[in-house]
Order: sequence, then structure tokens, then C-alpha cells
Amino acid sequence: MRILSGVQPSGNLHIGNYFGAIRQFVALQEEPGNECYYFLADLHAMTTIKDGSELRRLSLMVAADYIALGLDPARSVLYRQSDILEVAELAWMLSTVTPMGLLQRGHSYKDKIAKGITPNHGLFAYPVLMAADILIVRADRVPVGKDQKQHLEMTRDIAGAFNQAYGAELLRIPEELILPEVAVVPGVDGQKMSKSYGNTIDIFAPESELRKRIMSIVTDSTPVAEPKPTRGNSLYALLKLFTPAEAWPDTKRRFTEGGTGYGELKKVLLGLVLERFGAARRRREELLHDPGYVQQVLRVGRERAMTAISEVMTDCRRATGLGW
Amino acid sequence: MRILSGVQPSGNLHIGNYFGAIRQFVALQEEPGNECYYFLADLHAMTTIKDGSELRRLSLMVAADYIALGLDPARSVLYRQSDILEVAELAWMLSTVTPMGLLQRGHSYKDKIAKGITPNHGLFAYPVLMAADILIVRADRVPVGKDQKQHLEMTRDIAGAFNQAYGAELLRIPEELILPEVAVVPGVDGQKMSKSYGNTIDIFAPESELRKRIMSIVTDSTPVAEPKPTRGNSLYALLKLFTPAEAWPDTKRRFTEGGTGYGELKKVLLGLVLERFGAARRRREELLHDPGYVQQVLRVGRERAMTAISEVMTDCRRATGLGW
Repeated sequence: MRILSGVQPSGNLHIGNYFGAIRQFVALQEEPGNECYYFLADLHAMTTIKDGSELRRLSLMVAADYIALGLDPARSVLYRQSDILEVAELAWMLSTVTPMGLLQRGHSYKDKIAKGITPNHGLFAYPVLMAADILIVRADRVPVGKDQKQHLEMTRDIAGAFNQAYGAELLRIPEELILPEVAVVPGVDGQKMSKSYGNTIDIFAPESELRKRIMSIVTDSTPVAEPKPTRGNSLYALLKLFTPAEAWPDTKRRFTEGGTGYGELKKVLLGLVLERFGAARRRREELLHDPGYVQQVLRVGRERAMTAISEVMTDCRRATGLGW
Repeated sequence: MRILSGVQPSGNLHIGNYFGAIRQFVALQEEPGNECYYFLADLHAMTTIKDGSELRRLSLMVAADYIALGLDPARSVLYRQSDILEVAELAWMLSTVTPMGLLQRGHSYKDKIAKGITPNHGLFAYPVLMAADILIVRADRVPVGKDQKQHLEMTRDIAGAFNQAYGAELLRIPEELILPEVAVVPGVDGQKMSKSYGNTIDIFAPESELRKRIMSIVTDSTPVAEPKPTRGNSLYALLKLFTPAEAWPDTKRRFTEGGTGYGELKKVLLGLVLERFGAARRRREELLHDPGYVQQVLRVGRERAMTAISEVMTDCRRATGLGW
């Protein structure tokens, strides 16, 4: 089963990213029979990041972050979207069979307009480029969150239109991959952890900052001696995510029996976070000091991706009349 | 001065195409100091031609047609748009700075909707791809007909937006090249010659068909003996285009003095058309029997175009953060 997912070079990864996606990406590559393609979506990022050196920095960083967190370039195919010119070529081909109405109904585009963002054509055409990303490697499955279900539907519609115009089997219609249910990861303020809420705990923050963030998790004023509420308690939810199963009953008891202050529990969480990500944090430091290695990984990934891509593009060019 | 123009692989060339554009393209390459880039716009053609073997046939044919008519691959750079993947790449880059409003105001797109054509995204995004075509070779001048003035304006706006976002001098803002005034070429029915009116005289039609078309030019019922009207007379206008200057007074007299029937004048026109295009018609036959040569010309053209294009793309990738 070929799986594809894009990774936005959008800045610092946080704990919500890890439990919501990265952990699953890493797990998927370990399952026998899976071929995982992960790409840095730098062409997509251009719709919002207009600073070249910033985009370059973020692209390199997100690659280092994912490798450090366990994405194995020997097992998965990791490449940079913009290194594959064929993606833009296929996007154009798909544009010529994509009804305008399909794009005009895009939630994400409509939301951006509703938020008053002056839309550029890249934002509007985003689902076509996303379709090209997926279809160009003949992905069978695409992991999607709730907010991307419609985009995958669009990809399926676009692929169907292309196949209908040019030949039934040209493009593989991808299915969605429902990732194992994950508890919502709360941010330091109790809302869902999200960069846009400014409530994240970043995986690779310096230790002092990490400590500060964890200490700033909003708790209530239950006195130390008393039992702590567990429902709606971010600290409890985060501890549950990080605590190994065998230690959980004990940690849970410290909430329900009283006698342990929130400060102490936060220190436990900090220890667990550093333990969980310690090796990744060290590996990432090394990688950031060796950009040549990361670039080499992406070059090799490009070569490997091109094996699949060349086949698809040869078929598409022949069918559309672009090849001789 | 670098000049760029696209050539649509849209079918049989007619006399109107020749006097309206091809003759000028050929003349431009002869002027010292000009570097002419002409490309087969097959990516654009995909918005309307959904039959691969037809598009392939038309691409090869239009290349043969232009070469036969004097476009010299040694002097001009002749290439196929789809052979340059960077065109689609730059089009995506430009999309991210192109306001949706700009494209929504496009006349050509609005006209197509008004005509009830169900629009695909390719038609909508056409001006962005056209901008990429022009900007990717840093063209100074683009020959434009009246119906394309707005598209060149859009190219200028898009280039300006890109330069403003990423750096003042990245893309060259092209100017329009006003071609020497040409008399409107009438079709066989007296309207402007145009494929959409079905009134064309095709340059490369078999001789018997050419004869039939010319004999079918609509004339009035002036008796042979009488002087013929010259205003609004397609036959007169066509003869004027084809008759060498030194012979023109004599031909003109045959209209104004009477005594010559329209049938005879049509035969004169047929002779002149065959004379004008005789060498081109023979050369084109040879080229159509040697597709390998035409493909080779386009390959060499691609290589030459890439010299200019690599430079522009290196700059653009560096500025946007796609290169390392």
C-alpha cells in the first residue's frame, strides 16, 4: 500500500503535531507492505510565506525535525515538493479538467475569504496542486484530518475527470486513511493545542523554554492536599499521553488522592517530555549542524520518488499529447 | 531585443494567419539585434483539445508549418512549451502573488462564460501560464493582437507583484510590440478571415481544395464587360495582398476597366497563392515526412531556450526559498 502525506514547513513542531500525525507517520513506515512517501510542501507554503530565506530555513528544519523524530529515510521516501518539477506540470494538466465550480466550493478557500484574507490565485488553486502531489505517485492512501477530507474528495473528483477525459486507468483514485483515534491534545490554556491559539508546547524548544511552557499550563486552585479534578484538566490529559502504561495508575492516584501539588506534577510532565524526546532533540541538533546531510537525504528521496513519478508522467504525457 | 511569441497548435494555417502574424515573425528574426523565441503552446491547447494523438499531430504540424514558412531554427529559438517543465513551475510561483481579482477580470475568461462554455480551471489560470511563458525568458517585447492586449497587461501586473514581493529586478516587465499595420484579410465570404467563421483559405490545403476555395470567393453579379467594384470586394483585397507591386496597376485596371470576369481573376489569385507558397508547400511536405527532423529542431530549441530559462529560474528559486 502506497501512502502519501505532505508536511508543511510552517515552523516549530509541537506536541499536538506529534500525537496527531508524526507518530502515526513513523508507525506507518514500520508496517510491512507499506511504502510511505512524505514530502515537504514548500510550493504550498509559498502561498503564505513570501520570505525566501525563511522558507528555506523552515524547509530544512522540518526535514531535520521529522528525521529526528523517527522518519527513516531508508524506509520512507522523503523529498521536497519543489524538487519535482513534474508536480507543477501535472497540476497544470489537471487544471484543464478541473471545473471552476469544484474549486469555488472549496471550504478552505471560502474560509480564507470569510476571514478577510485577500486571496491569491495560489490559495484558490491549492486543491489542484494537492491533487497533483497525491496522484503523481499513484498513492493508494492519504492520511487526512477532518479539515482535509474535502480536499481529498476534490483529488478524487479531479482524478476521475482526468481519467474520463483521457483513459480509465491513468490515475489511481486514492482512498483516505483514517488514522487511529487520538485523544485531543490540549494546549497550555486548555484549548486544543494549535499554533494559531499560541498555546503550544514545542518539541524542540530549548529546555529552559520548555520548562517555562509546562509550568505555565493553566490549572485550577485546588489546594495541594485535596484530590484534583481530572476532567477538563490539561495537565492530567498531557500526563496521560506521556506516562508509560505501567506507571499510569500511580500518576493517576496522585491526582485523585490529593497530597501532590500541580507544580510537582508539572515537573513530572517535564521529565517525561524530555525523556520521550531526548534522543530526538539531540539528533535534531546534529542534523541542524549538518544541513548537507539533510539535503542529501532529500536528493536521494527525490531520486526514489522519481521512479514512481516518471512512470505516471510518461503515461499522462502520452495520453494528453505532450510526449511524442 | 528579446521577442517572444506563442504559436497555438490549433489546426490548418490560413492566409489570414500568414499576413497577420507569421510573415511578421519571419521578418523579426531577420532584424539585427533581435533574438526571437517562438514556442508551440501545447499546454495552453490542452484547455480545449482533449485528444492526445490530435494534440501531438497538431504540435508537429504547426512546427512544420512555421519552419516551412520561413521560421529559421538557426536564427530563432523554436521550442515546445511542454518540454520546459520550468514553465509550469514558474506559473505556480506566479500564482502565489496573483490576486484572484486580476484573473476574474480577464476578458477572455468572461467571454467564454458568456458563450456558455463550462469553464475549467485551466481557462481561468491561462493568463498566469501566459505570464510564465513570457517572463521565463525575460522577453523584452511581445507581439500582441488587440485581443491579447489585456493578457500582456496582466503579465506586467503579475511580474510587478512578484518583483515587489521578492526583489525589484527579478523579472523583466515586458512591453508590447505593435506589429506593422496589416490590412484586414477577408475570407471567402467577405468577413474577416477566421477559422471560427469557416471562411478561410488554408495555406497548405491540397491544390484541388485550394482551387475550390478560391473559386468559392463570394463576388457580385457584375457582368464580365463592366467595371467591378473594388470596395468591399474580397477578391480585390486578396489580389492586392498577393500581387507584386509592379504588377498591381495592371491587375487593378482589370477590375476598374471591365472586360475581365471574376472567374478569370480568381484564377490569377490561385496562381499567385501557389507561387507565393509553392516553396513552403513543398518544404512542408518534406518536413511532414521527416518528423524526426522537426522533433530534433524542437529539442535543440529547448536546449537553447534553457540557457536563458535556467538563469531566470535560479534567481526565482533563490528568491522564493525553493533552491538551497
